[in-house]
Amino acid sequence: MAMKWWGWGEEQRSFPLSDPERFWSFLRDRLGETSIRPRLQSLDQIVLPPSRLAPEALAALRRAAGDAPVATDGGERAVHSLGKGYRDLVRIRRGEVPNPTDAVIYPATEEQVAAILAAASERGIAVIPFGGGTSVVGGVEPAAGGPTVTLDLRRMERVLRIDRIAGTATVEAGIMGPALEAQLNAAGFTLGHFPQSFEYSSLGGWIATRSAGQKSTLYGKIEERVQSVRLLFPGGVVDTPSVPAAAAGPDLTQTITGTEGVLGVITRATIRLSPLPARSDYRGFLLPTFADGVEAAREIMQSGLRPAVLRLSDEPETEVTAVTQMGRAGVNAALLILGFDGEEDEVRLCWERGERILGRHAGQPLGLGLGEAWESSRFDLPYLRDILLDHGVMVDTLETAATWERYLGLYRSVREAMETAMAGRGVVMAHLSHAYPDGASIYYTFLARQDEGREIEQWQRVKTAATQAIIDGGGALSHHHGIGVDHRPWIAAYLGPGGIRALAALKKAFDPQGIMNPGKLTPDSEEPTHV
Amino acid sequence: MAMKWWGWGEEQRSFPLSDPERFWSFLRDRLGETSIRPRLQSLDQIVLPPSRLAPEALAALRRAAGDAPVATDGGERAVHSLGKGYRDLVRIRRGEVPNPTDAVIYPATEEQVAAILAAASERGIAVIPFGGGTSVVGGVEPAAGGPTVTLDLRRMERVLRIDRIAGTATVEAGIMGPALEAQLNAAGFTLGHFPQSFEYSSLGGWIATRSAGQKSTLYGKIEERVQSVRLLFPGGVVDTPSVPAAAAGPDLTQTITGTEGVLGVITRATIRLSPLPARSDYRGFLLPTFADGVEAAREIMQSGLRPAVLRLSDEPETEVTAVTQMGRAGVNAALLILGFDGEEDEVRLCWERGERILGRHAGQPLGLGLGEAWESSRFDLPYLRDILLDHGVMVDTLETAATWERYLGLYRSVREAMETAMAGRGVVMAHLSHAYPDGASIYYTFLARQDEGREIEQWQRVKTAATQAIIDGGGALSHHHGIGVDHRPWIAAYLGPGGIRALAALKKAFDPQGIMNPGKLTPDSEEPTHV
Repeated sequence: MAMKWWGWGEEQRSFPLSDPERFWSFLRDRLGETSIRPRLQSLDQIVLPPSRLAPEALAALRRAAGDAPVATDGGERAVHSLGKGYRDLVRIRRGEVPNPTDAVIYPATEEQVAAILAAASERGIAVIPFGGGTSVVGGVEPAAGGPTVTLDLRRMERVLRIDRIAGTATVEAGIMGPALEAQLNAAGFTLGHFPQSFEYSSLGGWIATRSAGQKSTLYGKIEERVQSVRLLFPGGVVDTPSVPAAAAGPDLTQTITGTEGVLGVITRATIRLSPLPARSDYRGFLLPTFADGVEAAREIMQSGLRPAVLRLSDEPETEVTAVTQMGRAGVNAALLILGFDGEEDEVRLCWERGERILGRHAGQPLGLGLGEAWESSRFDLPYLRDILLDHGVMVDTLETAATWERYLGLYRSVREAMETAMAGRGVVMAHLSHAYPDGASIYYTFLARQDEGREIEQWQRVKTAATQAIIDGGGALSHHHGIGVDHRPWIAAYLGPGGIRALAALKKAFDPQGIMNPGKLTPDSEEPTHV
Repeated sequence: MAMKWWGWGEEQRSFPLSDPERFWSFLRDRLGETSIRPRLQSLDQIVLPPSRLAPEALAALRRAAGDAPVATDGGERAVHSLGKGYRDLVRIRRGEVPNPTDAVIYPATEEQVAAILAAASERGIAVIPFGGGTSVVGGVEPAAGGPTVTLDLRRMERVLRIDRIAGTATVEAGIMGPALEAQLNAAGFTLGHFPQSFEYSSLGGWIATRSAGQKSTLYGKIEERVQSVRLLFPGGVVDTPSVPAAAAGPDLTQTITGTEGVLGVITRATIRLSPLPARSDYRGFLLPTFADGVEAAREIMQSGLRPAVLRLSDEPETEVTAVTQMGRAGVNAALLILGFDGEEDEVRLCWERGERILGRHAGQPLGLGLGEAWESSRFDLPYLRDILLDHGVMVDTLETAATWERYLGLYRSVREAMETAMAGRGVVMAHLSHAYPDGASIYYTFLARQDEGREIEQWQRVKTAATQAIIDGGGALSHHHGIGVDHRPWIAAYLGPGGIRALAALKKAFDPQGIMNPGKLTPDSEEPTHV
């Protein structure tokens, strides 16, 4: 299966627009006329700067890698040097890979990873852990500066143990979503973790970035599913205790989860599984407004119900969904996909209680079809981005989370900031897709006609405006994409000097040389001034 | 209300033995003849060493404290220098307070706390945050060495804000359980956090030690209820973000929760509330054996059910409970208290499903009475300890948690280690009281005739044997009591060198002088050797 270096997923796959003519006419109305944009035809056309790895250093890395493949050709270097964000795709379509990694190593064992870290540490070579490479915040992009090696962990993909009694599995971090889920399913379990990147992202990547899946409202974000992790850092290892709960100082699993490779390489984890549900029942509803839907979502979560799926689109996203996937125009309402997993009688009771709440907010059932349509197409949307980029449309997503009392205020202020940054010539749409008793996520998609030749500056304006509005409004700097390069300018404002002190202390303790994924997560001046 | 300095709770309260004669005869059979032990009659009789605070230092602390009371009399110093563990009560009944604190300050504001930390930091004075003082692991006991001041936080007891939309409250850390719960109940909410110490322990203490409550199987340990915390450390403050979830580096709330005052003083927290349940329905069952009950508990948790109470006594504890609380002898089975909180129809469905599972494990219902009896008496048990100590009986508790596949093996090995350490002349009993899909806690009580004059050495032998067996068997070093002084010798073995590196880095970053609650949690040599 050939993967797109210039876009999402597999070369043979594209997004099935239900009514292309209506779709393009709808977009033209909103964005103005756009034009087909050329892109580089072949990966071979990308001209990379020469490797910064001295021959001796490369030889030492090869020795450390043992029988693990070490790639230094341009194609491998290029595809490991950018993620899958809008900025990444714009650049790689132009052939711009400003700071390519100098070598890609494919270790298969923890011993190889440890040896590579030791060799890199001895020579001050930067090391970037790489899972599926689907970061949309610049999480796998090398920093400008010294020599860099990327550890592609895809060969570390074994399910080491499934414990049927505890309902846990110990798994190597490089395993991709479908391979993991298939092996768990065969044993009667599920992890229940389905990020949009599911097909091409890895367990280790999920843990490193605190990923959320489309059913995380029930199954929990990945940090709730991780019982313990193993982190190899330059010079040592952390194995956090595999216990259901403890009162033994800080929760080290939660201290390592989300560190985006800046402390070391997560090589394995023990994860909590759920039995495969006897029944999954997902349905569509229309609420009069997004605000009505938010209120219903809050009531559902605070009533103790735990839907597997609770996805509420605002009015613009509902309209676009209707055009894109149903071929219908002019819908002005808020689309809700709600669904429960569980035993038959349990799911029935959940629906009784859930429908009572939706009824109080004038929710209109759309029947089963929409829930099923959503489920069968839920990994397709990133393919639409490729079509839009081909047609000269800027399209990206960003996300946050907020407590309920701040939710609608933040939703509006971020939206307005983005609209202003696009000078009113774009589409901003959003949905709520992960809900908690105390709040929920907000996930924005924004589109505009590309400003040709200044695509990245144009995008950066929107991103900056949105992120500043998120910080000002008390939202999470990220709910599940992570910090990477893109959100790093705001991390100090988000965590405050005290929080940065903790982060800097961990960085210094585990990676005193600063070789682990430099330029991500931790702010530039890692030693905080005394407050 | 006068509090017992020599025991638990209020002077006027004692444990209501249902049939004292049968109880003592039962104990005599197991432990042999014990004798009434005298104790110090008055707090005034305790002779403390002179204060180590130089007059200038005390004056500086008084200035920093502003209008906060500063106590230096012997009684105040003594009762703030020990917790409520067995070792503490043995010592204070003898009048032994080996390392008393030198002053007790009662700040009412964060400004006062910050000023006191600054003054203490300037002079190298150790600072111990003190909530209810109910630690059973030596968590509030001063270390030998330099001058020490204790911050009694009971005046910081305001509920600052209840947010009815988000379902959260921001509360000062010194508030005690009943005052907090009463104010939340009045607003229609509950925290659902009821440790056995509930009546005399504080929110800040719960957070500092990762406390669990009797209904934590549903409502979660305190770390699951904490949305954000404020930590004042010498020279700064950490305010963790108040968001429902995030992907912005390590979870700083979980990094600070459980740090037992060694990084700074937790002064406030935003906690997640639950609506008061429409119905609470707790019932008693008898299972043929503890092993049957553990299997039923696992099935209940893995089926997705979340009981508010799931407390399963092993055979010895069931027998003692029958003698103590029901006046019945010769019961050989495992007592289960199971209960659900929720909406009427939800609780009904939970019982249908729960009883189906219990039926498969030959569970016999005992009716409603026992569940209610348990609920009405659930804070009484520590009072029984005072009666036992008066009668020359060693009695203490210790706890751990393990994943299900290790559970019964660990249960037996710890039990055998304790029995061996007591040379077969004691009673060891246990219960499972907090359950998770992947495992559960084990809570032991042990009793023996006191070895007069060597009470602490006798206790230490049992404690050491049990703790080593916990570590060897893959259990949590503590599930909800914390580390304090008592578990500190094992923390390095439990967390490993990599884990200790993280802990040491945080300690050094927030408390470089080592003035915050010295001698607790972090091991002696805080700088790990390079691994």
